[in-house]
Amino acid sequence: MNYSIALVPGDGIGPDVVAQAVDVLDAVADKYGHVFNYVELEAGGCAIDATGEPLPAETLEAAKQCDAVLLGAVGGPKWETLPGHLRPERALLGLRAGLGVYANLRPAALLPQLREACPIKDEVLRASNPKGEASFDLLIVRELTGGLYFGERGRSPDGSSAFDTETYSRSEIERVLRVGYRSAAVRRKKLCVVDKANVLESSRLWREVAAEVAKDYPDIETTYMYVDNCAMQLVRAPGQFDVIVTSNLFGDILSDEASVLTGSIGMLASASLGDSPEEEPKAGSSGGAKASGKRVTMGLYEPIHGSAPDIAGQDIANPLATILSAAMLLRYSFGLETEARAIESAVTATLDAGYRTRDIASRNGSAGAVNAAAGSTGAV
Amino acid sequence: MNYSIALVPGDGIGPDVVAQAVDVLDAVADKYGHVFNYVELEAGGCAIDATGEPLPAETLEAAKQCDAVLLGAVGGPKWETLPGHLRPERALLGLRAGLGVYANLRPAALLPQLREACPIKDEVLRASNPKGEASFDLLIVRELTGGLYFGERGRSPDGSSAFDTETYSRSEIERVLRVGYRSAAVRRKKLCVVDKANVLESSRLWREVAAEVAKDYPDIETTYMYVDNCAMQLVRAPGQFDVIVTSNLFGDILSDEASVLTGSIGMLASASLGDSPEEEPKAGSSGGAKASGKRVTMGLYEPIHGSAPDIAGQDIANPLATILSAAMLLRYSFGLETEARAIESAVTATLDAGYRTRDIASRNGSAGAVNAAAGSTGAV
Ligand SMILES: CC(C)[C@H](C(=O)O)[C@@H](O)C(=O)O
Ligand SMILES: CC(C)[C@H](C(=O)O)[C@@H](O)C(=O)O
Repeated sequence: MNYSIALVPGDGIGPDVVAQAVDVLDAVADKYGHVFNYVELEAGGCAIDATGEPLPAETLEAAKQCDAVLLGAVGGPKWETLPGHLRPERALLGLRAGLGVYANLRPAALLPQLREACPIKDEVLRASNPKGEASFDLLIVRELTGGLYFGERGRSPDGSSAFDTETYSRSEIERVLRVGYRSAAVRRKKLCVVDKANVLESSRLWREVAAEVAKDYPDIETTYMYVDNCAMQLVRAPGQFDVIVTSNLFGDILSDEASVLTGSIGMLASASLGDSPEEEPKAGSSGGAKASGKRVTMGLYEPIHGSAPDIAGQDIANPLATILSAAMLLRYSFGLETEARAIESAVTATLDAGYRTRDIASRNGSAGAVNAAAGSTGAV
Repeated sequence: MNYSIALVPGDGIGPDVVAQAVDVLDAVADKYGHVFNYVELEAGGCAIDATGEPLPAETLEAAKQCDAVLLGAVGGPKWETLPGHLRPERALLGLRAGLGVYANLRPAALLPQLREACPIKDEVLRASNPKGEASFDLLIVRELTGGLYFGERGRSPDGSSAFDTETYSRSEIERVLRVGYRSAAVRRKKLCVVDKANVLESSRLWREVAAEVAKDYPDIETTYMYVDNCAMQLVRAPGQFDVIVTSNLFGDILSDEASVLTGSIGMLASASLGDSPEEEPKAGSSGGAKASGKRVTMGLYEPIHGSAPDIAGQDIANPLATILSAAMLLRYSFGLETEARAIESAVTATLDAGYRTRDIASRNGSAGAVNAAAGSTGAV
């Protein structure tokens, strides 16, 4: 099959890690007989330099025409003093909203190979793990196009105060919860809604909607937890969680907290999904791959790490998060489960063989700072 | 001197731990020649049962007449199904707003005696500790009477959406920052403002105000951090922090996360302070202790743990957080530094002597589940 993939390398190590992921995708294309057409697009700091805008209209338009988007990272000190609406982060927010990718899947699992890099004590991990193992495997589903990120904001007329608005509609809450339930159904069948319902009205609406949606998934256990408690529980008992569904802001905070528990944010992939075609047929979708009868779900895939400008261009950045994001792309946007698993197995094999980038090299120095991507590509 | 202290034992283990703290306060009164007049007040679930309201008007009025308030804990499953405005938590929010205690000080330090109970690996703690020790000592100053907790909220007319508003004025931000700076001045002279200024307008106002206020404290190092990054840094490098100042919501989440790193939330005290008299003379303040010329700062003192109804009334709850809250009360509301230190030393001595409640008994079982309060009282 023919697929078009928008590549948005961005800034810092973005181009480094996207290049490695493309090598892996090419290996997959060869082996499984697909054709991936890449469309390289500018966004973030490099786009500010080239066009004055973090997200040029052409970038968003071109991305929408593709079947999926793979992004590296955006931002860096060079652009940090610009006013808010001209900062590289706007590219991320603009792509998320523009592509309508409202469900952000952030898996955080502790791989046995990286146990030493985890900051939490083994016995703490074991205590909450259903099998008594020193590991955890959770998925945070973060709402990505609503809430405090996209509500009305501003200053009072005299400039003496500022405000932001958290708004959620029933339909926004429902659709992201359904993504959570579908994910839980193929995992350990537990879903925890995280909110601050003892204070926030929007959180109370989340609970009401969740109580309704839960009825459609009787074999999944639904629980509720306050965000402050969740921030504690992630550290003291991460093994209790399977799928967490939460708002944009809480998801931002909790997924970063969870990421650090895995030992390296250089390992963590993410997928941001819109509606899949069976749920909302895209009338007038613009030909290309979509017209060919393939079922493609628009998705934005990116490592959760930042642009790390200090190590850019040196071929030492950990590309695994981006390679694993490419695997998610194949799975969620193209439905290519076998191909996705091939990449994931290649990553595991690479780690098993002892290849490590610096960020995940164990402290006793048994493994060298070898670029893991080379290993991955070979093993696909 | 004569002081009046409002006691709000509340629900669950609240009465247990407040009783222990009163024993300690009585020992202090004896030894240092003070008179503490206690005024016992109802709030929380017990007040709902007695009066139908979580915070009866008489409770708030009587609390305001006292020199300081010591609270146990409120809430429990019995009242969890009540509508929002009738829930025990409203008592907390009502007391905070009603007493005007806008600066919530939440110290989180890892005591050497409790290192085993900390979920983080020793080498991780050492790496960020300036002295290379496996410990940390930070203070979160949380804004307590503004932000998303007290902004306008509601539903759309058709009920299809809900909203909450985060609002901060310059003066609200400034006064809590100043509490942070004054705290940093007597600590390690570092202050980190935590916000989400890459997205929120209110956070951008925080940064503007902080940049101005910082000029008044040239010997204190001011840094800025995004809340998602802070949630990571607390786990991977807690030793980097001295004082963190942040909004109501972020402070709620981050202080709970920090608390779990200390090994036991049964140990953690908190102080919520209003303006001290030199800053804002209380015109017409209602006689009693205040009229006598003493300088008293209104404060609400409480353990950060919850009401733990499952272990209430069994004399096994850890009273140290409440006892340490009483120490903060003497320090911040009454200016009794020597007396506060005496309590803190007594707590340390009690732990050194091996007394432990169950929640902090080390896993190898060397210490029994002894009520630590008895030891504390004796040692003052
Ligand atoms: C850069 C920032 C706007 C962004 C967010 O808060 O969503 C980032 O933290 C993330 O989580 O992808
Ligand atoms: C009970 C709740 C309203 C409260 C808060 O969020 O402030 C609690 O979590 C706290 O931190 O004291």
